[in-house]
Order: sequence, then C-alpha cells, then structure tokens
Amino acid sequence: MGICTVQHINHVCIAVKDIDETVRFYRDVFGVAEAEVVDIEDQAVRAALIQVGGSQLEFIEPTDPNGGVAKFIERRGEGVHHICFEVENLGGTLRRLDEQGIAVIDREPREGLSGTIGFIHPKATRGVLIELVDQDDARR
Amino acid sequence: MGICTVQHINHVCIAVKDIDETVRFYRDVFGVAEAEVVDIEDQAVRAALIQVGGSQLEFIEPTDPNGGVAKFIERRGEGVHHICFEVENLGGTLRRLDEQGIAVIDREPREGLSGTIGFIHPKATRGVLIELVDQDDARR
Repeated sequence: MGICTVQHINHVCIAVKDIDETVRFYRDVFGVAEAEVVDIEDQAVRAALIQVGGSQLEFIEPTDPNGGVAKFIERRGEGVHHICFEVENLGGTLRRLDEQGIAVIDREPREGLSGTIGFIHPKATRGVLIELVDQDDARR
Repeated sequence: MGICTVQHINHVCIAVKDIDETVRFYRDVFGVAEAEVVDIEDQAVRAALIQVGGSQLEFIEPTDPNGGVAKFIERRGEGVHHICFEVENLGGTLRRLDEQGIAVIDREPREGLSGTIGFIHPKATRGVLIELVDQDDARR
C-alpha cells in the first residue's frame, strides 16, 4: 500500500513555444485530433488537451515571459513539463503526502484544466513535476 | 490523416540516478507495483517497467557514465527521458517519417524493452524524444 494508489496516467504535459504550430505538427505527423487551444489566464498559459487512447497529451505555451512555464523552457528547453496521475480522494491524498514529508505545492485541491488537481514538488519526486487529479472528476 | 496514427501511449520513461530507490519510492508513495529491475547491457542502463492503468512508467538508470542517459541526467537532471507511442506497421511508419523529412534516429525497427521500436530525434519533435513501438508486439 502506498500513500495513495495511482491507477491511471491522466495526461503527459509538454511545454512548447508555439502551441498552434505544435498541435498542427502532432496532427500531421501522429494523426491525433486537432484540439482547441484555450487561454488559462490565471496560469499564464495557452493550453490544449488531446485524447490519445485512454490518456491525454497536454500542450502548454507560456503567455507571460516571466511566468514559471516560460522559465522552464528558458532553463531546459521545450519538453515534458509534468505527468498527471489520477488518485482517489485528492484532498485526503494531499494531506497524507504532506504529513509524510512529501513536498506538495498544493496543500488543498484546486481547479485545473483536467479537473480538481494538486501538484507535488519535483524535488520530492526525482525531478519530475507530478500533478494529481481526483479520479472522480478527472477530465478524460 | 497523419504520417502515422498514434492510438495509445505505451509508456513514459523517466531517467533516474538510483532506480532501486526510485522504484521503492513510487511503490511507497503512489502504490504502484514494485517492478523487477533488469540490466540492458547494449543500452548501458538498468530498467524497470511498471504498469499504471493501460500505460506504463519506465525507469532507467545509466550504467555507463559516458553513455547518453548519463549525459542526459548531467545536462538536464533526473526527469522524463522519452514518451513511447504505439503505431501500426512500425517499419512503414519509420520509412514515411524519414521520407517526409522527420529526423528519425532509427531508420529500421529494432528490438527494445517494450517490443519492436524506433526513435524519432527530439529536434524533430519540439524537444521531446519520442519512441514508437509496433502495436502488434508492444509489451503492455
């Protein structure tokens, strides 16, 4: 038994400089659906979710050159930004992770593009930023 | 229609410094199965595949300090190394990608941990190293 039980990878998120061009590229090369690109103002990104089998690819393009995603691309280049796992009872999971000394970014669930979500700090998870989404209201 | 049609994310691969410790961490924190760690000598890594829902997490630890995975970790830190998509007719797909000017690392399918595989160069895919596996013999 773990602190939580991950039963599904909800999505893999890729940070890019030009989301419109990337979405077209994935459509033309990998034959995936062309997704609507939406503006998420409070996170300073434009984002698109594309269904691939039971999981999704998420693309994000920074809209604020001083925001976290822009800095990520500046530091590491375009690439995978985070992985999102589905868990039961997200609120309880974040509380238990925090109690066990796992560095969570969100102590309480909040609304995200994929449902009710919370992030774990990459320093706690060997360099991978991990998002958790409550499986009961995860967007699929 | 794309050059190929990706219908499933086979796995997400994470490069780490200590695979035994990481596999225990994912078991204890995320409740995933504890996978067997295998030596893949010709790729100079120790590797483990862990089923999470319909997809897998792959972990790799470099065994050669001068190999590609060790250099990846040196340059970017531990983190997501590649994403693996399943495609039909991998041989034909690699040939069509190459003909369309997409930089493939493998012009011909070869055997990998997940089945018959081939890699696309990250310079062709906005910074993300992408592995393709033939869906007819993909390990799931």
